[in-house]
Amino acid sequence: MERPKAPNSEETIISKNDLDRESGTAFLPRFDAQGLAGAIVQHETTGEVLMFAFMDQEALDATRATGFAHFHSRSRGKLWKKGETSGHLLEVKALLVDCDQDAFVLKVRPHGPACHTGERSCFYRQLGSDGLTRLD
Amino acid sequence: MERPKAPNSEETIISKNDLDRESGTAFLPRFDAQGLAGAIVQHETTGEVLMFAFMDQEALDATRATGFAHFHSRSRGKLWKKGETSGHLLEVKALLVDCDQDAFVLKVRPHGPACHTGERSCFYRQLGSDGLTRLD
Repeated sequence: MERPKAPNSEETIISKNDLDRESGTAFLPRFDAQGLAGAIVQHETTGEVLMFAFMDQEALDATRATGFAHFHSRSRGKLWKKGETSGHLLEVKALLVDCDQDAFVLKVRPHGPACHTGERSCFYRQLGSDGLTRLD
Repeated sequence: MERPKAPNSEETIISKNDLDRESGTAFLPRFDAQGLAGAIVQHETTGEVLMFAFMDQEALDATRATGFAHFHSRSRGKLWKKGETSGHLLEVKALLVDCDQDAFVLKVRPHGPACHTGERSCFYRQLGSDGLTRLD
């Protein structure tokens, strides 16, 4: 008869944490090796995906504290309040968290175009066999 | 009178590429230092955001070639056909590209729950002041 394997305590702990993350009510955001989590911005009523950016802990805290979307700019390496210059702020109405808590959906009321190009959404083109086509 | 500055050829090239990326019809996907771009999966008809993952060039090519969503698994370090084991494939109906072409929206018809937990969407919890609450 084989002896039952002794539980691997590290695996047990990781597994318990993963379970808590997936099914629990505790907010346990997980950031990657760069300290970032993906943040999807979606219009609160139309459901249109408006933009995608990254958040670090600082951006997440600033967003929760102010109710306006803050991100981490990877190119500038710092906190970025969306719309600080343009006035096109994103008012956060709800923040959803995914199963493993390393990505967020921000349901927002936009105070202007979400895209720096002036488009309502950054996702204004569709890929076809022949390249990109504008939507609308 | 000041002499006009000579154009910096590198800046000019970068700027032209950026402009082509933003306003052109050429598909010029841009991957980050890890070779990845964000991929948002959205239900084709309800608009619900179902999941978020990353794509590298290989995953993008496989998705375009097959019509089913493929991603790059960061934990396993390899190509991942979503639903290959569970059968819960994501049939891609449209692929949208953002302004700087480093993030995608996949509009899909899901062949089952998108989340490995069995939930329809990975984003099944909302953050409140007191932790997470289930949606629905």
